[in-house]
Amino acid sequence: MAKGLTSRSVDYSKWYNDLVVKADLAENSAVRGCMVIKPYGYAIWEKMQAELDRMFKETGHQNAYFPLFIPKSFLSKEAEHVEGFAKECAVVTHHRLKADPNGKGLITDPDAKLEDELIVRPTSETIIWNTYKNWIQSYRDLPILVNQWANVVRWEMRTRMFLRTAEFLWQEGHTAHATREEAVEETEKMINVYAQFAEKFMAIPVLKGLKSANERFAGALETYCIEALMQDGKALQAGTSHFLGQNFAKAFDVTFVNKENEIEHVWASSWGVSTRLMGALIMTHSDDNGLVLPPNLAPFQVVIVPIYKTEEQLQKITEKVDEIVKKLRRVGVSVKFDDNDTKKPGWKFAEYELKGVPVRLAIGARDLENNTVEVARRDTLTKTTVEMDNIEVYIQDLLEEIQDNIFKKALDFRAEMSREVDDYETFKKEVEKGGFLYCHWDGTPETEEKIKEETKATIRCIPLDGKEEEGKCMVTGKPSKQRVVFAKSY
Amino acid sequence: MAKGLTSRSVDYSKWYNDLVVKADLAENSAVRGCMVIKPYGYAIWEKMQAELDRMFKETGHQNAYFPLFIPKSFLSKEAEHVEGFAKECAVVTHHRLKADPNGKGLITDPDAKLEDELIVRPTSETIIWNTYKNWIQSYRDLPILVNQWANVVRWEMRTRMFLRTAEFLWQEGHTAHATREEAVEETEKMINVYAQFAEKFMAIPVLKGLKSANERFAGALETYCIEALMQDGKALQAGTSHFLGQNFAKAFDVTFVNKENEIEHVWASSWGVSTRLMGALIMTHSDDNGLVLPPNLAPFQVVIVPIYKTEEQLQKITEKVDEIVKKLRRVGVSVKFDDNDTKKPGWKFAEYELKGVPVRLAIGARDLENNTVEVARRDTLTKTTVEMDNIEVYIQDLLEEIQDNIFKKALDFRAEMSREVDDYETFKKEVEKGGFLYCHWDGTPETEEKIKEETKATIRCIPLDGKEEEGKCMVTGKPSKQRVVFAKSY
Repeated sequence: MAKGLTSRSVDYSKWYNDLVVKADLAENSAVRGCMVIKPYGYAIWEKMQAELDRMFKETGHQNAYFPLFIPKSFLSKEAEHVEGFAKECAVVTHHRLKADPNGKGLITDPDAKLEDELIVRPTSETIIWNTYKNWIQSYRDLPILVNQWANVVRWEMRTRMFLRTAEFLWQEGHTAHATREEAVEETEKMINVYAQFAEKFMAIPVLKGLKSANERFAGALETYCIEALMQDGKALQAGTSHFLGQNFAKAFDVTFVNKENEIEHVWASSWGVSTRLMGALIMTHSDDNGLVLPPNLAPFQVVIVPIYKTEEQLQKITEKVDEIVKKLRRVGVSVKFDDNDTKKPGWKFAEYELKGVPVRLAIGARDLENNTVEVARRDTLTKTTVEMDNIEVYIQDLLEEIQDNIFKKALDFRAEMSREVDDYETFKKEVEKGGFLYCHWDGTPETEEKIKEETKATIRCIPLDGKEEEGKCMVTGKPSKQRVVFAKSY
Repeated sequence: MAKGLTSRSVDYSKWYNDLVVKADLAENSAVRGCMVIKPYGYAIWEKMQAELDRMFKETGHQNAYFPLFIPKSFLSKEAEHVEGFAKECAVVTHHRLKADPNGKGLITDPDAKLEDELIVRPTSETIIWNTYKNWIQSYRDLPILVNQWANVVRWEMRTRMFLRTAEFLWQEGHTAHATREEAVEETEKMINVYAQFAEKFMAIPVLKGLKSANERFAGALETYCIEALMQDGKALQAGTSHFLGQNFAKAFDVTFVNKENEIEHVWASSWGVSTRLMGALIMTHSDDNGLVLPPNLAPFQVVIVPIYKTEEQLQKITEKVDEIVKKLRRVGVSVKFDDNDTKKPGWKFAEYELKGVPVRLAIGARDLENNTVEVARRDTLTKTTVEMDNIEVYIQDLLEEIQDNIFKKALDFRAEMSREVDDYETFKKEVEKGGFLYCHWDGTPETEEKIKEETKATIRCIPLDGKEEEGKCMVTGKPSKQRVVFAKSY
């Protein structure tokens, strides 16, 4: 167990907080609810960004940038949006400070009050649809497939690093279409992009599904989501894609002339993932020794630690390591050689375990003699000694194996933790054990609300690949045609 | 001349504003002083970011992310910093909205007033040095070489897209060092990185120099800058790198134990470039026909326009174009084939000229017969017909030639517009003609201030490569050892 890291079984929540700090991912800042993302954590986020950005562009999207601030009046234009959303947010009321006449320091200048107060964007539908109004006249201007990488602010009362912070980083796609069908197709395409990213890159298995009306994005006709299962049995919503219908087009009066020469409101989607994904990544794979990173997202995939007693030994090892590093980089493997001589090998081993580096190589004098190297896997914590020749091929294969293995491990865990429950009394007990509970539900918000109040579990999603099945709601006994997934969640 | 684009000679300022909008780079938003960066403009910024980010990482820097908000009290900790800076900024005073009890819409909830008001960062020295305090104990923790890509807000009264906006995008490097020498070395290294980027990628020649005390960054001991010359003869500061001494370390009490086991304050640098570079790019190269983009930063370097009368012709041309596109992409040239059939070739030619695409290929039926293609250069507006075979080699060479040519053109213009001036009366006349004026100055803020008041010209920099030369201040006649560069500026 890593030094100073609380064990998961003792206090899962504390384990998470400890790990975020000790692995140098992030820390709380002087501003309530806002975190500092440290270089090691940011390097992981950059890898996520790069891959997502590539996937967005491959599916025809372009990036753009819209203002940080939203005029207060915009938020009330889409009725449901404001109802579900805009209350807890940062309000800019003044645009100047001045020296405090009664002492030291600065005060807000009362003469610099804004006439129209500004909101720091909690999401950008309103400002973007106000902009699209000028971009769209005819069906020829459609579709608009735009994404934005940005920071947003929601004044959350209880915050946790990465999972729920007042400011967070995200991307938000905002698309405009000529038809309902196209907008729905886009919404579904993007939830599939997210699912593929989560599974292939983050090695996190996700359920794809629809949100119930209660859990829908404020202003959406339909919200698609991907839901992941954390090691403590709680669900985490990892990404959402919303079919917005014509709601924002109507609120901001965005119309176009269609092919039949008729004026019509534009159809919309929006979709986003955020630094919350970092939380999902940490909680899905890591253990009591620290982070476990999928090779596809590790800032460096391999670390090499020299084991030596004399300067001469170090020099010989370094020569060999230089060869290995070259070979690895040539095949696209990222590698760090840690020859820092103020730290002992044991300290380094623990440090890189804590930081989740997928593969550790150790090379000592005897390895040089035998032309071998010791290879340690972070995921299984196993060691093996392999021939130095063709090490790059061995490592490439190993990295793939690790990527597959941690995905499979998470998939097995989810399978274990998923079960069907048919009566409400059993449900109440089962929900305390965590995991995904597949249950029949009568489809009403009232029943969902009652379950939430009594058990704290919510409907995570109505699975897209769920099979039709005649059943009875576990609470009301009313008929149901498909099981939905309940869980407690982050 | 492009349709609707004001000519530079008629109204340079209007030409710029027209061009930003017509070339789809950016537009004003509903929020005063904040712009929307449109996909085509953002694609150029992304290319700048990618290259700068690569250069930063090559010089050992890592990215991180710090909070958008800064506690008001932080701004007054570094006395000069607050004096020179923090007055015009966005102040967050509340964290909640509520429904207006007297009618429709939302009002700021008076019960949700923040105890410590927050400032939207105008720059991040204060919040970052408050963070570094916890990162630094010993010389072993140094240097810290961190960069942040972020949005910042300065409540400017008069704004112009890209050049001066209330919100803008930038990067800010913030480094911490054990010695003065190291911090100065870093400061100089980064101004050199900026100069190299400006000249090699943006094709903009820049003067490297030091700012006079008047023009220094608030809180810096020394500010290094790169200064570019726009086509209207005005200077534009394109990037700055600040040696901060121990000022911020003292203000935030950041100390370390040095190798001699003594406690010392940490030494600092900070450096940044912003979306203002987009303004410099536009104003350096573009003409009355529209944008002229350097091939290294163009979203696509080549556009191919088919010239056809029948569907059959188009099909044959398309087959040929597919081959060309493949060949070009294989050698790393980005290319767009515009086979949109709702627009005529003439319209497309004008459009891509307006958007500054470096090379345009036109292919018609006769070209197919002759195995040729028409190649048009955006920089010189010249056309030539070349053999289809090995077109990719021809284009690669041509793109390099264009990159070099527009740099040389800007360099020649600057040479023409740079001259030595030795007496103040001549200066007053010359300064109206624009350009860089190399003059002797007595080194006092008073003289500089007087010149600024009387002529609106400022000292753009004290050139780093300026030769020593005995001279007399053109205003006071006092001795001077080096000419400094005066100009009116953006």
